Amino acid sequence: MSQVAIGIDLGGTNLRAAVFAGLPNSSEAILVHREEVGSARSPEAITQRIGVLIPKLLQRAELGGLCIPIGIGFAGMLIGHDGCVASSPSFGWRDVPLGDLLRGRLGERYKIGIYNDVNAITYGESRLGAGVGASDILAVFVGTGIGAGAMCDGILLQGSNNTAAELGHTKVAIDDDALQCDCGLKGCVEAYVGGSSLQERARRDLDAWASSAAVQLAGGVGNVHPGHLDAAAADGDDYALELYSEVSPMLGLAIANAVTLLNPKRLILGGGVFSRTPVLQAHVLAAFEAAVNPPAREGLQITTAQLGDTGGLVGAALLASTI
Amino acid sequence: MSQVAIGIDLGGTNLRAAVFAGLPNSSEAILVHREEVGSARSPEAITQRIGVLIPKLLQRAELGGLCIPIGIGFAGMLIGHDGCVASSPSFGWRDVPLGDLLRGRLGERYKIGIYNDVNAITYGESRLGAGVGASDILAVFVGTGIGAGAMCDGILLQGSNNTAAELGHTKVAIDDDALQCDCGLKGCVEAYVGGSSLQERARRDLDAWASSAAVQLAGGVGNVHPGHLDAAAADGDDYALELYSEVSPMLGLAIANAVTLLNPKRLILGGGVFSRTPVLQAHVLAAFEAAVNPPAREGLQITTAQLGDTGGLVGAALLASTI
Repeated sequence: MSQVAIGIDLGGTNLRAAVFAGLPNSSEAILVHREEVGSARSPEAITQRIGVLIPKLLQRAELGGLCIPIGIGFAGMLIGHDGCVASSPSFGWRDVPLGDLLRGRLGERYKIGIYNDVNAITYGESRLGAGVGASDILAVFVGTGIGAGAMCDGILLQGSNNTAAELGHTKVAIDDDALQCDCGLKGCVEAYVGGSSLQERARRDLDAWASSAAVQLAGGVGNVHPGHLDAAAADGDDYALELYSEVSPMLGLAIANAVTLLNPKRLILGGGVFSRTPVLQAHVLAAFEAAVNPPAREGLQITTAQLGDTGGLVGAALLASTI
Repeated sequence: MSQVAIGIDLGGTNLRAAVFAGLPNSSEAILVHREEVGSARSPEAITQRIGVLIPKLLQRAELGGLCIPIGIGFAGMLIGHDGCVASSPSFGWRDVPLGDLLRGRLGERYKIGIYNDVNAITYGESRLGAGVGASDILAVFVGTGIGAGAMCDGILLQGSNNTAAELGHTKVAIDDDALQCDCGLKGCVEAYVGGSSLQERARRDLDAWASSAAVQLAGGVGNVHPGHLDAAAADGDDYALELYSEVSPMLGLAIANAVTLLNPKRLILGGGVFSRTPVLQAHVLAAFEAAVNPPAREGLQITTAQLGDTGGLVGAALLASTI
């Protein structure tokens, strides 16, 4: 029997929503919505907007009056399972009881679940995307930062505080020179290979001393992003290749250690940066192969995310329907 | 209702067995047995010995004729869930179908489960030892090598090949100078802080150039073991403390990254070496605290294993009873 649920992706840039009517078998939405988050991003403003959006979506989908599950994938670190936001750099939030606020605003009519956005994507991919058929999955997404999610024996790995699978904050350097991460600690893999870190590092180098074809491709140092670096690397650009040889072993190591620990059947790679940087991905995978525990590598299938932007929406909707 | 089951621990030195009659509530055995493995350790010889031992145990416990679960914790790397040994340095085995051999020898009367020994200990501690009351657990054992086991949401983390939680083979160094591990790869944390590696390294140093009070405590370089190093370190011995400052961050890092990924409620420390090296443990924990992702650290309880030698026996018996 198919089920109706709403999935919402509350990211730093966009607030997206979709109404699904064919869960758990189909990721096709019967209605999609997107609006910019904009500058009014206090907990009250966001709660108010979601509170207006949901009844409107239900009305447009001709589902008014029904009590349906609503899953929200949120770009931030949650703590516990009631939708409490521990911190979100994208929103500038710390210790915000988003779940309570939304339940207060919307009333008891809705069953609201709030999930880490990467967990929602991982769950969506596992049920209706690149993870179908595998019970043990590690999904790694390289975008602005580095996020990950895991399924162990068919169950989403959440951990005791709901902060499991923070692969981006596993440490790959512990010496005094380890790079500073936005999280406050040093040596996190995200500080080396996260999209923002990589981009800042390259612009700084190219401004100060380095030269690279990426600057011409981008039309100026200030426009260089990882996609330009990757195009340059594909053409044998010295700077880009040197940068990659330095940072890609870091991510290869972090993924290898996670695979050694979790022994997944499928490793899913995705994210806005990774999908535009095939050369970086190849370098990372070479480093991964060298570092992974061979028995955990045996039979591992490496693939790319399939659901694109829909993954988080459908995953959040599925999670709200099933957990 | 209490259940009867046999637990066997097939280690490199001893073959131990116990009959439990109060599972899943009590770890008390009604009968225990220990014999040395000795030099005849071919798959056939071991199968033969276990095949003789089990009916004898059942008879002595006056359980002859009953069909009871038999769980075997094995010192080696398994692959799959049928008791196939991928490799075991302790026995010199590679690709041995131990489960099939035992089922062939013992017949269909027994329900035989074969588990990685550290997984068996972890399961035993989780159900009747230091893990009681926690659904998410990481257990790390430093003995000759470094083993680990994990419970995620109340389920033993096994992974798709049954080789999950191999913390000892997560990599902490990837440069050309990374130390060689017995597994064939370089840079595994076990190659730095596993009991054998630590001992060999210390004896080599002390033989070649270093001096340490550990030599006097041991009565000669050739007798130095990690316990002597730890006693020396406790007294401020320069060599021991320098060695610890070099290697303990490696294990602290590996445990921190595993906690960041798994977000357990409880971290259980144990093993023959760790239990005799409180100074090493303190150094490792200090490094752990510096590297762990703070949200995963919040609420984490750090404790020591409680069941000692019984852990693996009771864990294997419980696993055979329940999985």
